[in-house]
Amino acid sequence: MFRTSLPLRFAHCDPAGIAYYPRYFELCDAAIEDWTAAVLGVTRREMHFGQGLGLPTVTLSADFAIPSRLGDVLDFAVVVTRVGRSSVDLTVDIDCGAERRFSVRYTQVLTVLAEGKSHPWPPELHERLIKELA
Amino acid sequence: MFRTSLPLRFAHCDPAGIAYYPRYFELCDAAIEDWTAAVLGVTRREMHFGQGLGLPTVTLSADFAIPSRLGDVLDFAVVVTRVGRSSVDLTVDIDCGAERRFSVRYTQVLTVLAEGKSHPWPPELHERLIKELA
Amino acid sequence: MFRTSLPLRFAHCDPAGIAYYPRYFELCDAAIEDWTAAVLGVTRREMHFGQGLGLPTVTLSADFAIPSRLGDVLDFAVVVTRVGRSSVDLTVDIDCGAERRFSVRYTQVLTVLAEGKSHPWPPELHERLIKELA
Amino acid sequence: MFRTSLPLRFAHCDPAGIAYYPRYFELCDAAIEDWTAAVLGVTRREMHFGQGLGLPTVTLSADFAIPSRLGDVLDFAVVVTRVGRSSVDLTVDIDCGAERRFSVRYTQVLTVLAEGKSHPWPPELHERLIKELA
Repeated sequence: MFRTSLPLRFAHCDPAGIAYYPRYFELCDAAIEDWTAAVLGVTRREMHFGQGLGLPTVTLSADFAIPSRLGDVLDFAVVVTRVGRSSVDLTVDIDCGAERRFSVRYTQVLTVLAEGKSHPWPPELHERLIKELA
Repeated sequence: MFRTSLPLRFAHCDPAGIAYYPRYFELCDAAIEDWTAAVLGVTRREMHFGQGLGLPTVTLSADFAIPSRLGDVLDFAVVVTRVGRSSVDLTVDIDCGAERRFSVRYTQVLTVLAEGKSHPWPPELHERLIKELA
Repeated sequence: MFRTSLPLRFAHCDPAGIAYYPRYFELCDAAIEDWTAAVLGVTRREMHFGQGLGLPTVTLSADFAIPSRLGDVLDFAVVVTRVGRSSVDLTVDIDCGAERRFSVRYTQVLTVLAEGKSHPWPPELHERLIKELA
Repeated sequence: MFRTSLPLRFAHCDPAGIAYYPRYFELCDAAIEDWTAAVLGVTRREMHFGQGLGLPTVTLSADFAIPSRLGDVLDFAVVVTRVGRSSVDLTVDIDCGAERRFSVRYTQVLTVLAEGKSHPWPPELHERLIKELA
């Protein structure tokens, strides 16, 4: 399981002083960006511009349990829950201290950017994903 | 059913030149902001600052069918699918021309901002929501 | 002078309930996006993806006179103040009703995206810009 | 001089694959948020919600020298260049390695949020700012 922490900044908060949910998805995407480098072993820059591949989200669902406030340090845990031929399911659980704040479940698909078509996982990446399966 | 249209701007697009999904949620939230004023008959400013109430999202799920590109004009349809004591389920379907681009299903809860606690729909708002039920 | 109006949305506001200045720049950029289509006669999509050209900002300065609040409708006036060989100076003045909220002065440079190098204005665009000179 | 580093993420990049300038201001604001805690000795959460004070920007000017790309790690240096009765001038210089990417000069004013009026620096904060003067 990959873990990273990110602060909830002023930029992420709404007029109620709590996290605005579209910014939560930016933070989750930052966590998945770090997961990509750490777990897949390829930076998003290299994947995107070097290999012409992307990992767009095709479905997601989210539960927002408890609001987060300016200055909270959020802990992101990224778990691989399914590996397909060209897809991956991820669960991202976000805690602050011992408190579960929200969770997002993603299905993402490896995609050739120029064509917008799915691309099977290269064997090395597939192997890395299988190792991560919860 | 409430409808509004919003352009997909440069600010919403990622390095692949397509919509970045956290920005999609900003656009959906803008559509729901307009829906609030038109259907509930209260602006978000009045709700938030005048009445001290908010309508935070407690769950959402989204399907991203076809990517959107810079300059696309997106049509948002906001449909009420369930009305609870203090909650509402909304489906937002986003088309470009005849093409379904993505859909989001929301559960939102009327909340007293100062306490973070749910608040039953005032009778007039409840009535308006029931009329909107698909 | 090109004019357009954009609402200040929940997404643009900070925990003080007023516009968060980085979002102001997104709104100004949206106004310049509409100016590009209307005044230069080319959409940003066509400029970017069709012609491989961009109009990045090289300098800007901004004065924030009076804060804007959720729900304000902001009027953007885009004025051409100088036209160079490959550059343009723009002033964007943003009012709400009779009140000046903020102003931004930009220098932008027509750029070949693939090379990151400046590109002289094509004669037709240069002519359109000269006509716009305040 | 206060220094911090922040990565340029996918969320910050535009369809040209380079930093979109409104996101640069979010990053600078994050750096100033960290500066506030480290140099003024008060977190933005405490300042905002505990003391009812904010530090809005009244003017800024920026020079964008060299574009930044997805994955760049940006080094932010925050320098105090002037201290007024209730204001402060800051220069934020942003480098990647040995390369100056962009610079922003700010004037910010300590403000009572409820009234939107300037507030003189408390003596302790004034003293801390004077010590920081370049």
